[in-house]
Amino acid sequence: MSPFFGEVTGTMLLIILGGGVVAGVVLKRSKAHHSGWIVITVGWGLAVAMAVYAVGNVSGAHLNPAVTLGLAVAGQFPWADVPAYMVAQLIGGFLGAVVVWAHYLPHWEVTESPADKLSVFSTAPAIPHTLANLINEIIATFVLVFGVMAIGANTLAEGLNPLLVGLLVVSIGVSLGGTTGYAINPVRDFGPRLAHAVLPIAGKGDSNWGYAWVPIVGPLIGGVLGGFLYKLAFLS
Amino acid sequence: MSPFFGEVTGTMLLIILGGGVVAGVVLKRSKAHHSGWIVITVGWGLAVAMAVYAVGNVSGAHLNPAVTLGLAVAGQFPWADVPAYMVAQLIGGFLGAVVVWAHYLPHWEVTESPADKLSVFSTAPAIPHTLANLINEIIATFVLVFGVMAIGANTLAEGLNPLLVGLLVVSIGVSLGGTTGYAINPVRDFGPRLAHAVLPIAGKGDSNWGYAWVPIVGPLIGGVLGGFLYKLAFLS
Amino acid sequence: MSPFFGEVTGTMLLIILGGGVVAGVVLKRSKAHHSGWIVITVGWGLAVAMAVYAVGNVSGAHLNPAVTLGLAVAGQFPWADVPAYMVAQLIGGFLGAVVVWAHYLPHWEVTESPADKLSVFSTAPAIPHTLANLINEIIATFVLVFGVMAIGANTLAEGLNPLLVGLLVVSIGVSLGGTTGYAINPVRDFGPRLAHAVLPIAGKGDSNWGYAWVPIVGPLIGGVLGGFLYKLAFLS
Amino acid sequence: MSPFFGEVTGTMLLIILGGGVVAGVVLKRSKAHHSGWIVITVGWGLAVAMAVYAVGNVSGAHLNPAVTLGLAVAGQFPWADVPAYMVAQLIGGFLGAVVVWAHYLPHWEVTESPADKLSVFSTAPAIPHTLANLINEIIATFVLVFGVMAIGANTLAEGLNPLLVGLLVVSIGVSLGGTTGYAINPVRDFGPRLAHAVLPIAGKGDSNWGYAWVPIVGPLIGGVLGGFLYKLAFLS
Repeated sequence: MSPFFGEVTGTMLLIILGGGVVAGVVLKRSKAHHSGWIVITVGWGLAVAMAVYAVGNVSGAHLNPAVTLGLAVAGQFPWADVPAYMVAQLIGGFLGAVVVWAHYLPHWEVTESPADKLSVFSTAPAIPHTLANLINEIIATFVLVFGVMAIGANTLAEGLNPLLVGLLVVSIGVSLGGTTGYAINPVRDFGPRLAHAVLPIAGKGDSNWGYAWVPIVGPLIGGVLGGFLYKLAFLS
Repeated sequence: MSPFFGEVTGTMLLIILGGGVVAGVVLKRSKAHHSGWIVITVGWGLAVAMAVYAVGNVSGAHLNPAVTLGLAVAGQFPWADVPAYMVAQLIGGFLGAVVVWAHYLPHWEVTESPADKLSVFSTAPAIPHTLANLINEIIATFVLVFGVMAIGANTLAEGLNPLLVGLLVVSIGVSLGGTTGYAINPVRDFGPRLAHAVLPIAGKGDSNWGYAWVPIVGPLIGGVLGGFLYKLAFLS
Repeated sequence: MSPFFGEVTGTMLLIILGGGVVAGVVLKRSKAHHSGWIVITVGWGLAVAMAVYAVGNVSGAHLNPAVTLGLAVAGQFPWADVPAYMVAQLIGGFLGAVVVWAHYLPHWEVTESPADKLSVFSTAPAIPHTLANLINEIIATFVLVFGVMAIGANTLAEGLNPLLVGLLVVSIGVSLGGTTGYAINPVRDFGPRLAHAVLPIAGKGDSNWGYAWVPIVGPLIGGVLGGFLYKLAFLS
Repeated sequence: MSPFFGEVTGTMLLIILGGGVVAGVVLKRSKAHHSGWIVITVGWGLAVAMAVYAVGNVSGAHLNPAVTLGLAVAGQFPWADVPAYMVAQLIGGFLGAVVVWAHYLPHWEVTESPADKLSVFSTAPAIPHTLANLINEIIATFVLVFGVMAIGANTLAEGLNPLLVGLLVVSIGVSLGGTTGYAINPVRDFGPRLAHAVLPIAGKGDSNWGYAWVPIVGPLIGGVLGGFLYKLAFLS
């Protein structure tokens, strides 16, 4: 498997499991309906861990343009490969959302709220406030990228590292995610939002494109800051 | 211990703990009553992990015909041993369900709903829709088998792998299980359903045999696809 | 530290954390009040894991007469040391319960129910039924002892083993514990029950001595069966 | 990175994630609102684990004056470095609380209760009772420091140790934290309380300075006792 296809596959799996847990909790008549924030945050963390175990040896399992950018800034990933990785991640994110839609097929029409349906695909702020929301995504992604690099430097238990990255995502989710729903990954939000726009989802509303730039720009800034400060602190 | 008896023992333990957690949450007057989806999904994940630790060295701890089939398709398990493994798994699944019935003995008659009682043994769809339900089991089992093989290839922390497989099952449960209750294993559903049919369970209803083929056929298809695509992606 | 004092210390820590989590969930005005079965089961599992990490190198961290007996039956622990270990465990269980009482001191008088107060110390069946309750403790302890020995044989990640034992206890709790509250350890029930009888707990009721033999005899039988069958299956 | 800056960074990260999870659960209109004690305790445990992974190689990741003191008492840390470590930890605790305030910026004014707002920063007893509360912090911190030293002595899986310390904090939280909210760390309480006093938090009340000494003095006593008894038991 090529690194490009590794990123496609890994990001697709990430969104199948990550979007899937939101669908399970939010969509009506799911057995996981209303099972709460602990299920969503643990579900997303495990989604990351499993996707990293699946393709870590193929592509390094960035699965996130903010991570790719942060690693490039820190000098741990070649700049020339950044665009291809980002494209692969976006394709994976889109395809994963299509699978989630298909998996929960009979649940869309029994769920009334268009906002709940959109939340399976992309994030929305708890309190709309552009600057605060942008800062939320910057802070949370900074913690993600800085943390991923710190965990990656842990050579004492390498087989454990993907699980630790997953636990980092649980931690970010419960501690910082209550504000914007922690995209912390441009393609995790943009790929599924594209899918929401084009798929024939029963009773869907609009795809809230006005907010779409925040979970793209915020994570990219946070990733650059994370990579830069990690390099400053530990690699220089 | 022979591999055959290892699969019997491991699958029996899987169902004791897996069926047990559903019984604890669903049956009336259990101390775990109504403790929610997080308890059920964590309980099934730990059931898998503990069963794999128990007999992993004996039989490889497939505990699931879909896993056995997937490994055979990928060339990692001899086809000649497939039938015996499946028989052993079915015996274990049946025996495990008998233990769950005996363990919760006084709780059956205080629980009114026949559907709740059946849910301790076998799965049922949240929204009956044959094609969608079949696809759900195919997708979820595909993720299981592909993931199990990816984790099995992780040689950096082998002692951790059974726990990772358990966490994969938690992940599948929270993210994809809300639709059909994630059998993802023919004998996990068919063995206990047989037990439900023959055991003198107080106030039981019918065993819903009309649905029984879906959690058999779906997982087998998903397992074949998982083994085939894993081989295509990583082993060729 | 001697093995005797190791068992005292470890079992004391087990009960401080294990009895503590029940106190936190059950006693009024605790910040953990009504936080549910997931908190209780995770709390007990972590209590075991932490106690095993604390004294594992000193005494092997049995912390449980059923484990000591099972290991002796399997030929992995000298019979001559069994009585001293059990005495140490009982002392530790009693002392741990005293600490829990002191820790939650102002919470006893604001909690009305004597049954809730007793539940911090010792177990009680969800549905009183002597034979079924006894069988529950036998089955759950069998799984514990068989599982502990299987995990102990896992040499691939020894530093992980105490955590796995803790997760086994979480698994037993969620899957089999809803019936009798899973003593699965004679001193975990008898030591704190003694403490309940002698301590000046505000508004306490009787210590339910009529049930006290079940969580002693059941676990001892389960431990013997677990050790015997593990030996039969894996060591002969 | 110097050890001093390591302690600043690590303690800051600890409070960003630890204070953050309380904010997420307590502040109105957060997506994590009312998600319960399991989220708070898991969130704090992961906060500790992630902070230890981040700076463990730089400063040993004490992140807590009670740990620093306990290690000094046990002879595992030079007394001369104790004051600088404590200052660094206090700075980190203060800065982390500032980040939490900024991260949840629009949520302060939609939350009415001043006590809820203060709880994001510092601890408060469930039942005010000075002696009992002091003893609570002593007991819980004793368990923390004794446990951290026991885990630190586990050389079988060193890469796992920061996660085990995090799980120890989850265990202390669920089992002993319901009484005072388990500061178990002077700067975790005092640093954020200072921040609460000086920050322009919308609709804040007083900073409850009358209680502030308890979560400073209690943990320091508990840390000394933990280090002293650990040394007595294992190092002499």
